[in-house]
Amino acid sequence: MSSPAPVDFYFEFSSPYGYIASQLADGFERGIGRPLAWRPILLGPVFKMTGTAPLVSIPLKGDYAKRDFVRTAKMHGVPFRAPDVFPINTVAAARAFYWAHDQQPAKARELAKALYRAYFTENRDITPPATVVEIARSVGLDGAALATALEDPALKERTKREVDAAIAHGVFGSPFFVIDGEPFWGVDRMPMAQRWVKTGGW
Amino acid sequence: MSSPAPVDFYFEFSSPYGYIASQLADGFERGIGRPLAWRPILLGPVFKMTGTAPLVSIPLKGDYAKRDFVRTAKMHGVPFRAPDVFPINTVAAARAFYWAHDQQPAKARELAKALYRAYFTENRDITPPATVVEIARSVGLDGAALATALEDPALKERTKREVDAAIAHGVFGSPFFVIDGEPFWGVDRMPMAQRWVKTGGW
Repeated sequence: MSSPAPVDFYFEFSSPYGYIASQLADGFERGIGRPLAWRPILLGPVFKMTGTAPLVSIPLKGDYAKRDFVRTAKMHGVPFRAPDVFPINTVAAARAFYWAHDQQPAKARELAKALYRAYFTENRDITPPATVVEIARSVGLDGAALATALEDPALKERTKREVDAAIAHGVFGSPFFVIDGEPFWGVDRMPMAQRWVKTGGW
Repeated sequence: MSSPAPVDFYFEFSSPYGYIASQLADGFERGIGRPLAWRPILLGPVFKMTGTAPLVSIPLKGDYAKRDFVRTAKMHGVPFRAPDVFPINTVAAARAFYWAHDQQPAKARELAKALYRAYFTENRDITPPATVVEIARSVGLDGAALATALEDPALKERTKREVDAAIAHGVFGSPFFVIDGEPFWGVDRMPMAQRWVKTGGW
């Protein structure tokens, strides 16, 4: 029997719902019985494409979202502290992920969780490359090598290709799952996605 | 013991998710143990206020939404047929609701369900006042009286006040529930709202 095809899990490091999904991801992976391919994206280019803006900057919706982040985390038993600086530029975090991924995929996932925890539970701004390097070091990655790689145009290009591919696949938010071409957007669609897999698309 | 305070249930007659919520509303009402106050709104003025647009007209999001309407309805066992003309102007439908409501609240709810079914299961465009009047008649309301009322500036003003009040309360989508000041947006937030009521706000 061949192993089941992976399910794409797109997320932006500045997205509270992406963070919540990352904390639920291992359980979700077991639930659907298929491996998750973690893929950090940058929502800036996506918002340009869709003509929208970060959720919290939209009148009415922004205030609503701030309440909903907190209660959604609570409902799922995920620790959450609204960061003081929000949203942030997460390009260094995304690049670090792909750098780690190309060497040790399991470590990349560990790094993603550590970056998310730093931002959404410890109130650490993960924008500066130096902070990203420090967190990478804390999970056992080679900080000096990462610091060098973050300056490498090849890694910038590698990350850009991922973001472009995500947009080409119709990804417009975080978290975003794609299962055999079927898109699921949001923490609230994870149960639906699980049912979709179990019932073969109903 | 005094009866429990009502929960506001805002919806737009052109909204597929509002329709799905309307079909689940009676069960939801029993689940939370509090009466629902049905309040049709018009999303046009809301979109002006938030600087957004109808979901289906947004790049990427629009295509996603069209798939999600269908599978959300299926997941909840609600019959759904995507209307050929969509979205539509539902001002006559909203006005008819408030006209019925001021006379017989229970009938108004019946009318809302009939209007929604006509649009989302029978592919009938409920924009024309004549169609709204015909549907009102089918649930036992006085069609001639409604036709006259739909021309009455007082009813237009009554409806406008409702929409303005909804915006003032932070309503920006459909369906939208407000429970003791706590807002819940979307069919997917109905289980969260129910838990909110049961646990007293957790």
